[in-house]
Amino acid sequence: QTDSISSEKINVEYTKKGFQFSTPDKNYSLHLEARLQFRFATPNDQSPVNFDYFFQDNKTSFKINRARLKIGGNAYKPWLKYYFEYELAQGNLLDFRVMIERWDFFKIKIGQWKTYYSRERIISSGKQQMVDRSIINRPFTIDRQQGIEFYGRIFPETFYDFTYHISVLTGTGRGSTINDNNHLLYVGRLQYNLFGRELEMTGSDIKFHEKPTALLAIAAATNRSQYTRFSSAGGGNLVGYDSNEPGQYRINQALFETALKYRGFSWQNENHIKKITDYKTNTDRTLTGYYLQAGYFFSNILDFVPKPLEVAGIYAHYTPNTDFGYSKEQEMGMAFNWFFKEHRNKLTMEVTHFDYESPERMEQKEWRFRIQWDISF
Amino acid sequence: QTDSISSEKINVEYTKKGFQFSTPDKNYSLHLEARLQFRFATPNDQSPVNFDYFFQDNKTSFKINRARLKIGGNAYKPWLKYYFEYELAQGNLLDFRVMIERWDFFKIKIGQWKTYYSRERIISSGKQQMVDRSIINRPFTIDRQQGIEFYGRIFPETFYDFTYHISVLTGTGRGSTINDNNHLLYVGRLQYNLFGRELEMTGSDIKFHEKPTALLAIAAATNRSQYTRFSSAGGGNLVGYDSNEPGQYRINQALFETALKYRGFSWQNENHIKKITDYKTNTDRTLTGYYLQAGYFFSNILDFVPKPLEVAGIYAHYTPNTDFGYSKEQEMGMAFNWFFKEHRNKLTMEVTHFDYESPERMEQKEWRFRIQWDISF
Amino acid sequence: QTDSISSEKINVEYTKKGFQFSTPDKNYSLHLEARLQFRFATPNDQSPVNFDYFFQDNKTSFKINRARLKIGGNAYKPWLKYYFEYELAQGNLLDFRVMIERWDFFKIKIGQWKTYYSRERIISSGKQQMVDRSIINRPFTIDRQQGIEFYGRIFPETFYDFTYHISVLTGTGRGSTINDNNHLLYVGRLQYNLFGRELEMTGSDIKFHEKPTALLAIAAATNRSQYTRFSSAGGGNLVGYDSNEPGQYRINQALFETALKYRGFSWQNENHIKKITDYKTNTDRTLTGYYLQAGYFFSNILDFVPKPLEVAGIYAHYTPNTDFGYSKEQEMGMAFNWFFKEHRNKLTMEVTHFDYESPERMEQKEWRFRIQWDISF
Repeated sequence: QTDSISSEKINVEYTKKGFQFSTPDKNYSLHLEARLQFRFATPNDQSPVNFDYFFQDNKTSFKINRARLKIGGNAYKPWLKYYFEYELAQGNLLDFRVMIERWDFFKIKIGQWKTYYSRERIISSGKQQMVDRSIINRPFTIDRQQGIEFYGRIFPETFYDFTYHISVLTGTGRGSTINDNNHLLYVGRLQYNLFGRELEMTGSDIKFHEKPTALLAIAAATNRSQYTRFSSAGGGNLVGYDSNEPGQYRINQALFETALKYRGFSWQNENHIKKITDYKTNTDRTLTGYYLQAGYFFSNILDFVPKPLEVAGIYAHYTPNTDFGYSKEQEMGMAFNWFFKEHRNKLTMEVTHFDYESPERMEQKEWRFRIQWDISF
Repeated sequence: QTDSISSEKINVEYTKKGFQFSTPDKNYSLHLEARLQFRFATPNDQSPVNFDYFFQDNKTSFKINRARLKIGGNAYKPWLKYYFEYELAQGNLLDFRVMIERWDFFKIKIGQWKTYYSRERIISSGKQQMVDRSIINRPFTIDRQQGIEFYGRIFPETFYDFTYHISVLTGTGRGSTINDNNHLLYVGRLQYNLFGRELEMTGSDIKFHEKPTALLAIAAATNRSQYTRFSSAGGGNLVGYDSNEPGQYRINQALFETALKYRGFSWQNENHIKKITDYKTNTDRTLTGYYLQAGYFFSNILDFVPKPLEVAGIYAHYTPNTDFGYSKEQEMGMAFNWFFKEHRNKLTMEVTHFDYESPERMEQKEWRFRIQWDISF
Repeated sequence: QTDSISSEKINVEYTKKGFQFSTPDKNYSLHLEARLQFRFATPNDQSPVNFDYFFQDNKTSFKINRARLKIGGNAYKPWLKYYFEYELAQGNLLDFRVMIERWDFFKIKIGQWKTYYSRERIISSGKQQMVDRSIINRPFTIDRQQGIEFYGRIFPETFYDFTYHISVLTGTGRGSTINDNNHLLYVGRLQYNLFGRELEMTGSDIKFHEKPTALLAIAAATNRSQYTRFSSAGGGNLVGYDSNEPGQYRINQALFETALKYRGFSWQNENHIKKITDYKTNTDRTLTGYYLQAGYFFSNILDFVPKPLEVAGIYAHYTPNTDFGYSKEQEMGMAFNWFFKEHRNKLTMEVTHFDYESPERMEQKEWRFRIQWDISF
């Protein structure tokens, strides 16, 4: 007759995930968080897409780049978790997923989320080291997809400490409700936790890891669909591709990744290769790219440097077509992070230099400056 | 000067409607709930629309079929209630309504909600017995509309125990902000509560009614608009109609409905008739349809059957045009429900057989298989 | 290791902003509120745009005019505030902003919100005296914009008690993510708090100010963009303008405003001038407009009048083009407000008379009747 499942006292707390409500038996909980990201960029915010579109349209911009509402928690059991993330400004539902996390070595995720493939993309836009992801994210990310994932960590704290993720996804990107054909997207990732400690998916060593924590990872994916790239907007195509025909492209891709955090120092690096086969024109194209990124809290060695300040740098290199090896795109960036309250309230100032070469060996260069404030409530 | 209306202790509970906050005087409350529905379907999810579109486009699909956020409660008085339901994946506001429920025999509802017409449609997609509604829902449902409703229960627990609903609506469907003409949609429903007990609008006898609880209901509706059918997407047209002219169609429709729950057994049945008058071509068309649905928890009579398991079946029959009486569409389905936690956490496996006949007496048949997990947080 | 920032007891209250959660140190808080506005209007809801569009399309309407979800609070510090407002029915994010309110004399706001320019527009649609804003709101409002605002109150409770607002905005309206050109919108407003008391931005003297509280304000704005007007829908154009060319129009505008509340009586008045320069045709146009509005709780002088009843009236006058001074548009309205619970639960009945003159000195007149229920949860 009554609607009450549990009339016991509910715990209310403010946590790193916002206000949280939970039943005393921990079977039910809900947390609610909002996040805003303000950004000023000049002469343009977007990284140039290729040589021809090089800052085509220069517009100094001040904008609210991200406005997110996050609701998560667990229900029925402590290990039955759920998570929603909504982009308020665009009106896009980004994440909606249920996780069955009963055993550490075997967990299941169902719904839509950021495919566990590359570190740079998995790290939340609110926990990045630079203002945003590098130029190689656009061509190589698998982004958000719908489907099922099996994952876990095996032999923890031993020499054989691995974290694995196996995903079977529709392969048609965020927001799509049906697959365009009967071909699915398969993604596998195997991560070796070098020192028997698992490195979390965040930028910057804010926590000051006393012991080195590192990972080596390989990942691979194969998909057949009408898309050659994915983003928060869903499926799309790289320059040079413009099909709407279901299943026109086969994508095979792989990466090798390293990352380390140790005493205020952080390092991460990804090396990508991707092959696009066009079944209509019977042509292939191979793309390669990598980035090297590092950051450090210099207050650890220099007394006059304030504690909340981190300096970070990135070098990214992208070859849109290995047949024209000289047509390359480079990004070099430097960022200063001021952590008011870890990643939850952070100011970032960034300078980036782009250097793109056309297939005809012409060159274009440009500087970009950005300031960003990211705050979670 | 202070914003506080009530500084007394707020009750926080976890209820069947999610986390709930309420003031000690019960004048204010708010509950927050989310729901996800995952579905796998092969060879296709949608029921075929008619003979010609019979599984035209076969696509095995795995998808998040529904992602809902629900906020409700009361304000100022215990009987002044409100309710919002938002479809997160589509970005659609489904329900937004205020209910004045001061007296049981006379209540008022204002806003947008699922018109109180047919049982199958009123039952929430999270509380259904089968994976989804039958083939006759599409042509006959009035779906969500905006307007006002008067309703109540009279002579409760007597021989004359009736529940009535009278609705005056714009008749242009969900999400429309203006009426297309000055013709309104009128809906009436009279429900006889057979044994002096009111049957709730949910599938399956989870509660194990010790006493038989049943209803007989009749309902009728009349509308003039440019639409011949309604769905969550708003107003639309049945195959054969494609007007955009305000007020082109007059729809008159009626139904007779029965339902019963008793000791684990549940029954429901609807019988529909609908007449569409096209004022432009001066033609009429009459549609008829019905379904019979039943379910049972066999654990009540068979010891070896697990308690959370229910078996249910449906037979639905639709005649798109009574002038071509032989052109008929049939659906036969069987479902197995596993109730982890009543309707709030439920797994359903369903097999359906479709048998459609064209006006030329050709026949098409097809099987469909679906699995669905519906979970509320 | 734990997610808890503060495990101390969270205060939960029901306030004028809905349910509110706050940490004992007041550094973190969150409030959650919903609002619905139901409206019946005949023969039409919208005020006529000009002589030619005069009730072109008469449609009696009953609709849910506004359905809002509001989330606000503070984080990290009591003076670091945030606020989101979402229009659920349209799926529009209206407000998303952060306020640094550490000092009363100098505050900073970043994000998107209703530009602090004219009283009528700043007052929330839920706290208005009439059913909605007058005919001069459409041509003169700056509406919601993105950018930064500096504001504060100086010399409070002295003879030199001023409130100022200086805004630098993109000038492309709600929901735009980039500026169309490098020209920004600048808005300044200086308000003199006559009696050393600041008048809040709400209609009707519900609080029964024992002492007179009044303001005199001047404001000005300049912008260059492709738009000649703004609304909740973003940038748009007044009748006679239809450009999509970035930076085609320069808008200079100014206003003089007065307002007073005293013992149940409320008064407000705005006087606007706006000049549009079209850089393509090299033409100018000047628009002027004003309104006078007053309301009173007659229960203060007449015993037989019920306490919750307020009577209010408005007269608005708009000259779309001062070169054709005789082409004028007038609105005369009278409203009866019944405050169940201040502005949070209010019923309004309104009668309006429109009298528009064409440049050819033709005249059109019409009556409009509206009833509105506005309720916050």
